[in-house]
Amino acid sequence: MGRRMFLFRHPLSYYLCRMKTKNTICRLYGIQHPIIQGGMAWCSGWKLASAVSNQGGLGLIGAGSMHPETLREHIQKCKNATNRPFGVNVPLMYPRVDEIMHIIRDEKVRIVFTSAGNPKLWTEWLHQHNILVAHVVSSSKFSIKCQEAGVDVVVAEGFEAGGHNGKEETSTFCLIPRVREVCSLPLIAAGGISSGSSYRAALALGAEGVQIGTRFALCMESSAHPEFKHYCRNLQEGMTQLMLKKLSPTRLALNDFAKRLAQAEDKGASAEELSDLLGKGRAKKGIFEGDLKEGALEIGQCAGSVRKEESVQDIFEDILSNKA
Amino acid sequence: MGRRMFLFRHPLSYYLCRMKTKNTICRLYGIQHPIIQGGMAWCSGWKLASAVSNQGGLGLIGAGSMHPETLREHIQKCKNATNRPFGVNVPLMYPRVDEIMHIIRDEKVRIVFTSAGNPKLWTEWLHQHNILVAHVVSSSKFSIKCQEAGVDVVVAEGFEAGGHNGKEETSTFCLIPRVREVCSLPLIAAGGISSGSSYRAALALGAEGVQIGTRFALCMESSAHPEFKHYCRNLQEGMTQLMLKKLSPTRLALNDFAKRLAQAEDKGASAEELSDLLGKGRAKKGIFEGDLKEGALEIGQCAGSVRKEESVQDIFEDILSNKA
Repeated sequence: MGRRMFLFRHPLSYYLCRMKTKNTICRLYGIQHPIIQGGMAWCSGWKLASAVSNQGGLGLIGAGSMHPETLREHIQKCKNATNRPFGVNVPLMYPRVDEIMHIIRDEKVRIVFTSAGNPKLWTEWLHQHNILVAHVVSSSKFSIKCQEAGVDVVVAEGFEAGGHNGKEETSTFCLIPRVREVCSLPLIAAGGISSGSSYRAALALGAEGVQIGTRFALCMESSAHPEFKHYCRNLQEGMTQLMLKKLSPTRLALNDFAKRLAQAEDKGASAEELSDLLGKGRAKKGIFEGDLKEGALEIGQCAGSVRKEESVQDIFEDILSNKA
Repeated sequence: MGRRMFLFRHPLSYYLCRMKTKNTICRLYGIQHPIIQGGMAWCSGWKLASAVSNQGGLGLIGAGSMHPETLREHIQKCKNATNRPFGVNVPLMYPRVDEIMHIIRDEKVRIVFTSAGNPKLWTEWLHQHNILVAHVVSSSKFSIKCQEAGVDVVVAEGFEAGGHNGKEETSTFCLIPRVREVCSLPLIAAGGISSGSSYRAALALGAEGVQIGTRFALCMESSAHPEFKHYCRNLQEGMTQLMLKKLSPTRLALNDFAKRLAQAEDKGASAEELSDLLGKGRAKKGIFEGDLKEGALEIGQCAGSVRKEESVQDIFEDILSNKA
């Protein structure tokens, strides 16, 4: 029996059935593929976010590295560059988070990903303004807190992810099944996902979607410095490390600065000493300005798997192709 | 057209086709499911290994914690307990590896997994005696060395695995695709695999089989102490840590001893100081004798996902069932 025949006989049940079988994340966000581009400081402005949304994924503008008015500009440019849904990632420890949230509301952005903070703080307010809330966690304990806070979607991010990271060091392989077990929210896996095979593996682990950071950070539409992209694409295994554990665990690519940090940590440096060594503006210096010696090069463990310069379109084609 | 009809018309091509489609690891070892039980000190004697082989997986006797004559006894008992293939895991840094290897040959064991050493050392000798060699690595660089050494199968083990571990801290999610890319040997994924969903995820990442340690270490047929099993089954996330990094990175469950170790490492303890703190016989004390305070409790990150007392048969039924 052809589809047309079926449609003729049971139009409603047919559509209901389609709605039921379609991926939860796609349905919720109105996107085609459950592939989220992680909001990343100094990498994900309107160019990257709109390119991802135009490919049928969900692009996120990373508010963490923007002044509030810069964010407004990026949102407006993103609206001009795509008709598809996109969102904003807001690290909740950001000092001007209040202004950021009001801009998001005023600009009628409908999707927010929050991270690095308590999901109770903003979820209710965002819901009042008809905005969907996803929150990023690194443990199943915090996924339960997300559920209690009324969050719509949980993003569980493993140890292999770049930048800020959890204290438990739980890898994506161990984290996703544990979150799946205790939390009934739609689940997006993050950390170590960069290819078609890791995308399918994350879904096999129990996630409904994936958040990809590193591979998008290194592509053409990312606003990161070309030197940073080139350096990260050639990283050998072991060349990113989870550092600053006494301060706030952060995955960095090894360079002169990170090696000094590693030596200090090896000798038992305190949180204060690490904070002094880190200083201010290191991530901007490394990622945006391309200072490969003194910058903090936040990037994930799978960076070295990304070998060539590629566009967002190349990435989607590669991930969605059926090759292993 | 039914199978019988097909068989009648093309008996040979039918069987060739079946051989081609059957999993490489299964074909090579003559087993039913590409599920290998990791060889683990103080856990995997003849009881565990034979139980796994009887379920259609591949059981491994862990020689690392045995005197050579004890190993001979375990091999003989294993032969009595199963007609199916089983193997022996040999850590190459073991002081009496020469005796161990001769016992394996004399007892006509056909499968050896080597680890913690150079795969060039024994592969040729083992092949001369008609023994298949798998070698455990933690980086793609070493998987290339396995290929050069003529090893038959490579086991790539990620950061989340229990006990001895790689310096690069590459997680299973990032490691498997990288090894797959550079190494054409049949590939077994290890580290963080304990369930049906993680089994399927490992295959999606590009592995042909999985090695499961932690879940088997905590089951009924494991020779580990009941107190150790009970403690590990209830571990929260973050309660295993990769420690002893300056000596030889090892994943341990946190207890009094491990906390002292963590404090010393936090203060910058040297390799010598760590070695003094570790002393001798800690793994036996913890795993085999059940000293939860002073033993070294080697176990993987997914320990806490194992919630109940279960047999090897329960584990196989659970992993091979189609539930998420």
